[in-house]
Amino acid sequence: MEKTDGFIALNEKTLVDYIKATPTLCSILGNKFEELQVKEVGDGNLNFVYIVTGDSGSLVIKQALPYIRCIGESWPMTKERAYFEALALKEHGRLCPNHVPEVYHFDRPMSLIGMRYVEPPHIILRKGLIAGVEYPLLADHMSEYMARTLFFTSLLYRSTAEHRQSVAEYCGNLELCRLTEQVVFSDPYKESQYNRWTSPYLDRDAEAVRQDNLLKLEVAELKSMFCERAQALIHGDLHTGSIMVACDSTQVIDPEFAVYGPMGFDIGAFLGNLFLAFFAQDGHSDQGNDRKTYKEWILRAIEDTWNLFQKKFTALWDEHKDGSGEAYLSAVYNSSELLLLVQQRYMKNLFHDSLGFGAAKMIRRIVGVAHVEDFESIHDDSKRAYCEHRALEFARLLLKERRGFQSINQVVLAIRDLNLDKVS
Amino acid sequence: MEKTDGFIALNEKTLVDYIKATPTLCSILGNKFEELQVKEVGDGNLNFVYIVTGDSGSLVIKQALPYIRCIGESWPMTKERAYFEALALKEHGRLCPNHVPEVYHFDRPMSLIGMRYVEPPHIILRKGLIAGVEYPLLADHMSEYMARTLFFTSLLYRSTAEHRQSVAEYCGNLELCRLTEQVVFSDPYKESQYNRWTSPYLDRDAEAVRQDNLLKLEVAELKSMFCERAQALIHGDLHTGSIMVACDSTQVIDPEFAVYGPMGFDIGAFLGNLFLAFFAQDGHSDQGNDRKTYKEWILRAIEDTWNLFQKKFTALWDEHKDGSGEAYLSAVYNSSELLLLVQQRYMKNLFHDSLGFGAAKMIRRIVGVAHVEDFESIHDDSKRAYCEHRALEFARLLLKERRGFQSINQVVLAIRDLNLDKVS
Repeated sequence: MEKTDGFIALNEKTLVDYIKATPTLCSILGNKFEELQVKEVGDGNLNFVYIVTGDSGSLVIKQALPYIRCIGESWPMTKERAYFEALALKEHGRLCPNHVPEVYHFDRPMSLIGMRYVEPPHIILRKGLIAGVEYPLLADHMSEYMARTLFFTSLLYRSTAEHRQSVAEYCGNLELCRLTEQVVFSDPYKESQYNRWTSPYLDRDAEAVRQDNLLKLEVAELKSMFCERAQALIHGDLHTGSIMVACDSTQVIDPEFAVYGPMGFDIGAFLGNLFLAFFAQDGHSDQGNDRKTYKEWILRAIEDTWNLFQKKFTALWDEHKDGSGEAYLSAVYNSSELLLLVQQRYMKNLFHDSLGFGAAKMIRRIVGVAHVEDFESIHDDSKRAYCEHRALEFARLLLKERRGFQSINQVVLAIRDLNLDKVS
Repeated sequence: MEKTDGFIALNEKTLVDYIKATPTLCSILGNKFEELQVKEVGDGNLNFVYIVTGDSGSLVIKQALPYIRCIGESWPMTKERAYFEALALKEHGRLCPNHVPEVYHFDRPMSLIGMRYVEPPHIILRKGLIAGVEYPLLADHMSEYMARTLFFTSLLYRSTAEHRQSVAEYCGNLELCRLTEQVVFSDPYKESQYNRWTSPYLDRDAEAVRQDNLLKLEVAELKSMFCERAQALIHGDLHTGSIMVACDSTQVIDPEFAVYGPMGFDIGAFLGNLFLAFFAQDGHSDQGNDRKTYKEWILRAIEDTWNLFQKKFTALWDEHKDGSGEAYLSAVYNSSELLLLVQQRYMKNLFHDSLGFGAAKMIRRIVGVAHVEDFESIHDDSKRAYCEHRALEFARLLLKERRGFQSINQVVLAIRDLNLDKVS
């Protein structure tokens, strides 16, 4: 057990003592400890996660260690990320309580969060997508989550003074931002010891990414936007592994990469990972299930997500147009015609940003350090490479040509064109 | 004398006692106080400025009071602005010592800066432009100042970690930013008690600005960019009243609006105020001097400023392309062809940003709260209105059509088109 500045890395045993000494957590468990079960389930890349269940209650304890778990102590990473995760969980939870689990307790020296256990039948969305499960409310829930968290932390709702104060606070989460900058926007476009791909099948594809000047020109703009533009409090890592789903419930977890950044980074992460799920389906099809219907469902979920997001986001804007938001003062944007004009411009830019970031997120999952289970679970290398190759081709097209798309429907049509032999 | 939290508003008498009690300042004055002369010269809008001269040295003392001087105690304004001014003077001074006066002393509780006295023959550039004085080195010096201060505080030179830390610090200057947001990006486009213009001549012009939907659409984007985009440490108020000039020297003062913001805000402020100076010339012409030659000089200074800026900025980029800047890693942007492509895109966007911000700065000086002496010194109302009307027309065109201009030369040609009857 290592101790520094009040930090102790807990294990399944010492965790129980910690809980017993913490009244808030005791009370969640009904102050009964006889039948307490503790299970470490951190299958993510970064942290230790314990599920604690008792007769009278349950909770999750998440502790950040001062390095990246999946790589080890050789890649140090500030445990202060837990502070920003707790902060964002609370802020986003306040704005969208239906889709963010409650934080019961935060201990900054221990980098430890005690929060609601998102219990079964919830599973990680990515696993559901691999299994081919349809979630009829997913697009509705995720568009709600994104519309509310992004709108209410932007200058469409906030005063610029509040905004600058919040921006300053989250600037402290710089180490996690640096990780994103490196693994999303830089490493895939150069030689890096961390990059990997399905070799030898994708050797030429990876090389092509590194040689594609127009692609690198576009990704530079996205990287600058990520580093410079404080548009809203974003989750920062909104892929399908950060979302827990049941048939009637969607819960967003793990916002340790939270920062003020471009909204499109979150929207793109979610859409991009749905695209990845789509392209992986051919690797999961078998004689019993050709996945054709499921692929159609994913495409619909993609369309619905954006269209519902757009609808909900602009509805919030309309509702609060005379409010405290300082980007578009009602005294200036004082006619419905002008407001419409402004909203159309805003949503168009946001759409193109989202497509760009979504494409960048896809590329990095195929030729960068961290891959996705959607593809990794396809054990036949050549089959996996085939799926990855198509996803990569689509992502490169999307990143370079994103400004040519006028609607999400056109994007989906472009996917169909690429997939004619498989979908039709 | 008011005292709060260690703050005392000084006057010409108590200032001398303050200096005597401050060794750094004493030493600048050669520790001689017999012949000391103190003169209050704050002709700016915000602060008190004292010139202190003695037999063996001189200096300037600038003190911020907790309100806006030109309006009075009815418009409170944090005196912490002096902290950000001192910070920016030191940072920009380190990066461009030839064009930023040295800071000798800063007293945060007193909101007091002791700095180099930029002595005569230096005068405020705006006054020189009104008088029709040519400054052959102005474009060279200002392009040098802007290229160096903006490049070295951007992600072209900085690591993202350094950048986020600096951004967070300057987020504290939020009250001054709010002032900019209000008087530059909002008030001119709505009814406001603070707005004024040459009435009745410009009543229809002011009304037209408030009714121009496309103009308001464009200004919304600029406002968001100002509030959200931390591209570099900008001066924040780089008009011709913040620049002191002599024939062979150019000194930039008064960066109390300093913040991380879009580079184009500084470049546009300077260019926009040169445009204003140009349009004011017809009001200053008389039988002895029709100002034709001088107008040509201003147009040349505008062209030279941008062209030299572009040259120097990209030269710094080339020089430091393998350095610590994290926006464009040399391992990714690894061929001269790709670097050129990236630079062209970057400079094109920066050019259009600069034109947009420049135009917004012009508009606010004609129909907003704070006007410029260039026009105010034209005592004949109808003559002033005529000049202002033309400047306003040009600014509206520039703001709306800025993306159509490929070079500064095209912008100057557009001015000539508007001024055919006067210039040719």
